[in-house]
Amino acid sequence: MIKKICMIVMFLAVAVTAARNSSCKDVLDNSLTRPPSGIYILEDSHGFQYQTYCDMLTNMGGWTLIASVHENNAQDNGRCTKGDRWSSEQGSSSLQPRAENWMNQNTFGNVISATADDFKSPGYFDIKAKNLMIWQVPNDTPLDNWRQASYMRYRTETDFFDYFNGNLYSLYKHFLPIVSRQYSWPADNGPQIPVVFDEGSGGDLVSHFGPTTKQYLTPGYIQFRALSSQHDVFAMCPGVKISESFSNAQFACFGSTGYNYNAKYCGDFAGWTYNGYGTHTTWSVDKYLIETTFLLFYR
Amino acid sequence: MIKKICMIVMFLAVAVTAARNSSCKDVLDNSLTRPPSGIYILEDSHGFQYQTYCDMLTNMGGWTLIASVHENNAQDNGRCTKGDRWSSEQGSSSLQPRAENWMNQNTFGNVISATADDFKSPGYFDIKAKNLMIWQVPNDTPLDNWRQASYMRYRTETDFFDYFNGNLYSLYKHFLPIVSRQYSWPADNGPQIPVVFDEGSGGDLVSHFGPTTKQYLTPGYIQFRALSSQHDVFAMCPGVKISESFSNAQFACFGSTGYNYNAKYCGDFAGWTYNGYGTHTTWSVDKYLIETTFLLFYR
Amino acid sequence: MIKKICMIVMFLAVAVTAARNSSCKDVLDNSLTRPPSGIYILEDSHGFQYQTYCDMLTNMGGWTLIASVHENNAQDNGRCTKGDRWSSEQGSSSLQPRAENWMNQNTFGNVISATADDFKSPGYFDIKAKNLMIWQVPNDTPLDNWRQASYMRYRTETDFFDYFNGNLYSLYKHFLPIVSRQYSWPADNGPQIPVVFDEGSGGDLVSHFGPTTKQYLTPGYIQFRALSSQHDVFAMCPGVKISESFSNAQFACFGSTGYNYNAKYCGDFAGWTYNGYGTHTTWSVDKYLIETTFLLFYR
Repeated sequence: MIKKICMIVMFLAVAVTAARNSSCKDVLDNSLTRPPSGIYILEDSHGFQYQTYCDMLTNMGGWTLIASVHENNAQDNGRCTKGDRWSSEQGSSSLQPRAENWMNQNTFGNVISATADDFKSPGYFDIKAKNLMIWQVPNDTPLDNWRQASYMRYRTETDFFDYFNGNLYSLYKHFLPIVSRQYSWPADNGPQIPVVFDEGSGGDLVSHFGPTTKQYLTPGYIQFRALSSQHDVFAMCPGVKISESFSNAQFACFGSTGYNYNAKYCGDFAGWTYNGYGTHTTWSVDKYLIETTFLLFYR
Repeated sequence: MIKKICMIVMFLAVAVTAARNSSCKDVLDNSLTRPPSGIYILEDSHGFQYQTYCDMLTNMGGWTLIASVHENNAQDNGRCTKGDRWSSEQGSSSLQPRAENWMNQNTFGNVISATADDFKSPGYFDIKAKNLMIWQVPNDTPLDNWRQASYMRYRTETDFFDYFNGNLYSLYKHFLPIVSRQYSWPADNGPQIPVVFDEGSGGDLVSHFGPTTKQYLTPGYIQFRALSSQHDVFAMCPGVKISESFSNAQFACFGSTGYNYNAKYCGDFAGWTYNGYGTHTTWSVDKYLIETTFLLFYR
Repeated sequence: MIKKICMIVMFLAVAVTAARNSSCKDVLDNSLTRPPSGIYILEDSHGFQYQTYCDMLTNMGGWTLIASVHENNAQDNGRCTKGDRWSSEQGSSSLQPRAENWMNQNTFGNVISATADDFKSPGYFDIKAKNLMIWQVPNDTPLDNWRQASYMRYRTETDFFDYFNGNLYSLYKHFLPIVSRQYSWPADNGPQIPVVFDEGSGGDLVSHFGPTTKQYLTPGYIQFRALSSQHDVFAMCPGVKISESFSNAQFACFGSTGYNYNAKYCGDFAGWTYNGYGTHTTWSVDKYLIETTFLLFYR
């Protein structure tokens, strides 16, 4: 009996020691049965331990939350100010042509607060992944309700990260830098990667954007590095691609630089409130979308 | 002998596994003897682990530090700017009528630095508690000296959180939102919950406020959602309740919104420096109080 | 066999329990063989656990990374704004005469992101050390490449911290406060502590500073609390001492207060871009130095 107990203790000790997971995919692969969705401790390639959320349900699971894009203030006094980590916290200025946090190894926020503030974990640049998933969740939804509250969930399935060294950090730093006034429109628009929807539909997604914007959008894609004809540059268009003739990516994409043709395009959510906050007129998105957090997952 | 050792190892392994404490009350309840005050690792309801301070002395212990309110700059250039997380970091503006961080699941700061900067732990919204305790500690006091350096310590003992779903998050989000220009003065002033003092006296506490303010204050309470006659709204009046005829809650309470009648009322410490920084004239508090951090505990 | 296994388990359990290291020196001293450089979990004197980087190579190892000084925006719109934690994030103002974060127990940032943003760990004020080491590393260098990418590495070896209570916190708080307009120039300039170079040379270091600045610098030292003739005060001159006749410490030292004779001297990197960003003309440093992170270690 004691021998058996000792064997079990040994087994447990080894199991704990062995549990060095660098991603939720590792957690899944190292488990005998499907583990539940929730908080896990991961360890990056430097041995740094951090906590993040794993989605273990979508398409067999193994998805790691690596960032959230949250707009803390899309009103006129909030453009490219405190809290706009995915664009500029240094104001709207020709001196801020780069959207640095897409391209560097900075981290901020807390997984627990990912729908209440911006979040960027070490996984953003540390994990080597193949696909990207996005969940759209109303702001300040508690973690336990993220999945249920998400009104849009979509993901790539073409292993497109294989072409960009495995993650968004590398994609933006080495392939598609987010730098204003550097590119030719529309020739330098970035790739449009197809997605499948697990929740919500493309038609519904598009309907949240401005009534005038809608005609230029095709759902079922994630577009990277979208340009405007005025040479502004935006990191990502969530769930949609923009038509080549669309000169105003600021109304459909997020993550501006700090240097834009119009200061009203500056911010984590770019020009989404150009015709008023949540008014859903002309170029403005509706109130539901402006108060949405985008959760970004890798697998 | 070996058998015994193995039994002990097993016991230790089980004990470690079992030690899932969601609050300092749990730590206390799960200990055979009274554990010391200090840093503990807690685990919230999502399985997220975080460190905070437990006070294991006051009234039999079990108090969890869940937040600190620290004013980093109460001078004219610091009103509702960077560091004013309990009011507005987006300036003084009619576009900022809500004091969001009292009502959301954001987190910030570090328990170790709780008297040097604002702190908000997951416990603020995760722990279900019955009572609130406040310690007033001079800024930048090291953790080991908090208790000794606290010149005021007081707490509720009426289990008032039972009526507000167990914590400040729920109290402010669901019952008493801190939103400017929404309420009638004085009818909508929030509840005044009695406290007992463990350190310091009500008379001493009141003497730190402005000489003109004092007459309107009754110590021995914590007042929530205090209003001014100009429809400004403040989260909490520490250790005092304000008289119904007092139209200037900004001089006795902390946690303003970003939208106030006078920009000089904007900030974590509201209008406490209205007649100069630490001057202790008319409405201004003294230097000791303006350089105090308020540590908030649940049990 | 089983007995042996149990003994090993016991030994492991004890070893894990015993591994309470408050610094990388402790990690080294508690190891039988030289541990590798990398991330370790330390525990401060309050029992608070945190992760930081240990350099186990330089001069027999045992060096703890306790802070990084990173300039996020040295352009005209970035002086003493968001991200200038080692000077002022409250603008350039006579109301900000103190460089608080050198003198308090605040913490910020993340070891993983130490070359992408400012970092200040509990070790800054918790560890009792004897010597200071500085590495100069290009911004956004990943942790695994820090050592290789560092073009300057130098350290004191005189145990000078013995005279200042063991760390920078104590040095600045109790002996050499960084407060503007308090001192006589040049009499109150702080101590100049000799360093040895492990990588790079004094001549090379000096060559990165402004062509006009160079003549006033002697490499092979770290100078603390450097003054300008206009009564501005700077925390540290890295790798150099300034000559007594040098009235412009703002061009060679980092860590200004928020209150300077000229707003262009305000910022984590003080006046290093006075004659343009990275122009290397007159007083301006070159582009390489302005995009350098200073990693600070204790032993």
